[in-house]
Amino acid sequence: MKKQNHCFYTLFALFFFTFTPLSMTTVLGQNSKSNSDEDALFIRKIYDHALTNTSAYPWLYDMCTRIGARLSGSEGAAKAVQYTKQMLDTSGFKTRLQACMVPHWVRGEAEKVMVKTKNGSMPLRVLSIGNSIGTGKKGIEAEVIEVKSLDDVDKLGEKVKGKIVFYNRPMDRTKIQTFEAYGGAGDQRRSGASRAAKYGALAVLVRSLSTELDDRPHTGALVYDENYAKIPAICVSTNDAEKLSKTLQNEPNLKLFMRNTCQMLPDVESHNVIGEIKGSEFPNEVIVIGGHLDSWDPAQGAHDDGAGCMQSMGVLDILKKSGYKPKRTIRCVLFMNEENGLRGGMKYAEEAKANTSETHILALESDAGGFSPRGISFDADPSVFTEKFKKVSAWEDFMKPYGIDFTKGGSGADIGPLKPQKFLMGGLRPDSQRYFDFHHTAFDNIEFVNRRELELGAAAMASLVYLVDKYGL
Amino acid sequence: MKKQNHCFYTLFALFFFTFTPLSMTTVLGQNSKSNSDEDALFIRKIYDHALTNTSAYPWLYDMCTRIGARLSGSEGAAKAVQYTKQMLDTSGFKTRLQACMVPHWVRGEAEKVMVKTKNGSMPLRVLSIGNSIGTGKKGIEAEVIEVKSLDDVDKLGEKVKGKIVFYNRPMDRTKIQTFEAYGGAGDQRRSGASRAAKYGALAVLVRSLSTELDDRPHTGALVYDENYAKIPAICVSTNDAEKLSKTLQNEPNLKLFMRNTCQMLPDVESHNVIGEIKGSEFPNEVIVIGGHLDSWDPAQGAHDDGAGCMQSMGVLDILKKSGYKPKRTIRCVLFMNEENGLRGGMKYAEEAKANTSETHILALESDAGGFSPRGISFDADPSVFTEKFKKVSAWEDFMKPYGIDFTKGGSGADIGPLKPQKFLMGGLRPDSQRYFDFHHTAFDNIEFVNRRELELGAAAMASLVYLVDKYGL
Repeated sequence: MKKQNHCFYTLFALFFFTFTPLSMTTVLGQNSKSNSDEDALFIRKIYDHALTNTSAYPWLYDMCTRIGARLSGSEGAAKAVQYTKQMLDTSGFKTRLQACMVPHWVRGEAEKVMVKTKNGSMPLRVLSIGNSIGTGKKGIEAEVIEVKSLDDVDKLGEKVKGKIVFYNRPMDRTKIQTFEAYGGAGDQRRSGASRAAKYGALAVLVRSLSTELDDRPHTGALVYDENYAKIPAICVSTNDAEKLSKTLQNEPNLKLFMRNTCQMLPDVESHNVIGEIKGSEFPNEVIVIGGHLDSWDPAQGAHDDGAGCMQSMGVLDILKKSGYKPKRTIRCVLFMNEENGLRGGMKYAEEAKANTSETHILALESDAGGFSPRGISFDADPSVFTEKFKKVSAWEDFMKPYGIDFTKGGSGADIGPLKPQKFLMGGLRPDSQRYFDFHHTAFDNIEFVNRRELELGAAAMASLVYLVDKYGL
Repeated sequence: MKKQNHCFYTLFALFFFTFTPLSMTTVLGQNSKSNSDEDALFIRKIYDHALTNTSAYPWLYDMCTRIGARLSGSEGAAKAVQYTKQMLDTSGFKTRLQACMVPHWVRGEAEKVMVKTKNGSMPLRVLSIGNSIGTGKKGIEAEVIEVKSLDDVDKLGEKVKGKIVFYNRPMDRTKIQTFEAYGGAGDQRRSGASRAAKYGALAVLVRSLSTELDDRPHTGALVYDENYAKIPAICVSTNDAEKLSKTLQNEPNLKLFMRNTCQMLPDVESHNVIGEIKGSEFPNEVIVIGGHLDSWDPAQGAHDDGAGCMQSMGVLDILKKSGYKPKRTIRCVLFMNEENGLRGGMKYAEEAKANTSETHILALESDAGGFSPRGISFDADPSVFTEKFKKVSAWEDFMKPYGIDFTKGGSGADIGPLKPQKFLMGGLRPDSQRYFDFHHTAFDNIEFVNRRELELGAAAMASLVYLVDKYGL
């Protein structure tokens, strides 16, 4: 038994020493500035508060379970505006609502798609694509024709006339960053309807943008090209897309029945929610942190983008609880309508441009899920990017103990319209492997958000904000 | 609407360019050797096969759902030995079973712990600690005394006599690597019973080793110090530990009732499962990859360590499917009894030492969950570590596009006994944030394993094995 004891101790010692402790000296050794110690210690303090003391997760839990889905123009979106403003108010931040008109798309009755095979009808798991028109109450029945791309439709031309076009190009599993695979397949959902309508198709069915084979249909937005007729568009789960494709091999003249009653109602007023800490020395220099408050209707929008909103509110919360008094104005913006219009982002940029008394120096968005953060990627107008990125890169060593790297790359959709204003923009870059299991599905709910992962993202954002606030950019 | 169209395109363009594509040139530019191109391309091929074509996830799914828990000595463990050997056999690898005697601990009837308050009895969510003796069928009732550490017990000394000691020191949430927090709290579960027994305590109740406050009790092993009486030990969920602690503040002389019927039966024979590809040039140089096949009884052991086993089998599978013919012998070892004895690891090391016709050059373990891999940490006997780590570090650039870094640190418990044989040992280092939500609980099941994350871990391991095999170490 002595031998066994020895081995158990070995086992635990191994666990204990498996990971290098994140001591300050690691950081300090790499920075010769006299204030490096102070900054490294303050960033450690930020992480301590984020992991023990921030409200980001409880806020997200509340919003997901009490309000849930928040599609632009919906009652949920209006409630979320009130809820987040109230949380920012009661936390002692200066708040305001920034009005903007938003599209008001409604899904209507549950969508129905049936494959009419020789052996009978087979229902598919589907969700209408956001912004789509409906089929009308009677639905549409037509032959289905499978394609892999928009180019395929161009090649088929008039052959798609009177038919339902079935876009079935999968996301590429071999991409290490799943957003790259999303970028490579998204045109089918976004532009597939108008491309098919160009040649007289009646409707489109689109393979869901998922990295897995499963039974979850994914929604998301389409954009109609005003030059062509608007036709209905529905997404089908990847498993059912595979099944339909196989059935088509045996029955090429297969018919599909589609019915949905979604519609675009007149625009309604909604709001960006803004909360801030006024800068003590340079109140007119603004650092924006944000996410988007709207979310798709089938779920709670926990990862997309409740997580980003609460991480952004969490940055204010953490800085306050850490006792930090910013020199510059730190502004949290919860943008409305990223999902199907980007009106909130455009409104914020428009007013920022018009307000000549303020200068923005950084905008940082979190809109890639509340997963373990792996880095922050930076973007800016090319005329200023090299200089700004060089400056921010000098701080990267502070973030290494927390597994955060600084890279060149995109930032975020909502802050995109600010790009012409020529300052640095960043995007939190969480681990992307799980995102497309949940994104735009009925499964984007709070039980799939890990508290620590969310908090670590908020801490990474708060640390960057601290450095930019303290030293300028 | 033109404006809206523009914004949608911006949005998608942003997604597309958010992450730097992982081109070969990134890698190639950093390596001047003439074979860098070839190696970078082969590693890309390994990742392609891992993400589209490996059996690692289906195997894990099968083992979890058809066999489930695999505690040493159990029927599940015996079935898992047969299942994995069969999978390795039918995949065309050379297999054998390596016999070893293992402890056979059984949990018995469902554990019961009741707090006897003034207002009545309150049940707690508990699991007996592995290797614990039982209370006997009648159970134990005694006053409870709360401590934060083994040192506290030493200070209390005879005051714990006749009592139940309640260890209630939480894991430190501020540790970025959760294994470090585990290392810092694990002594309570491992050694708490004997320390309390030293001063005459009747039993111990231990706060579960979780990073969260939740209702999930965690099991795990204890080691009895043969110098003291064996007393029963049970873990309590973190929420219930908090509740008990609060109740004790009002009622310091509170009594606890504990009952469990677990027991250690005589050792039984079990096996390490070994599958390998014989080296074509240096068959006597061995690269070991492995995980442990045994798992705790309340769940399927999906992350701990079904994931590591299937990633290790996956390495053979991926190398074969990639068309790679190893020069050296690549050996997958599924170790038995890591959880409560480490007998499999000891047996393998003992036989490896005795077999002078073979030399090991690398042992690589995966036993930290099937989460997104972030790196590989390396360890070895100090007399060889610097040289070996320098050599392996030269290949780190090949792994950068896949988000994998090479660090100094621990390797794995099962390969630990090989350390005196003075070769390089590595441990796959997955993101650790979610691990202690599942570890040793009833929730360590296949639905919490993401397929891509598992596959990326197998790919990282296979890539290192490829490089070490090709160039030696």
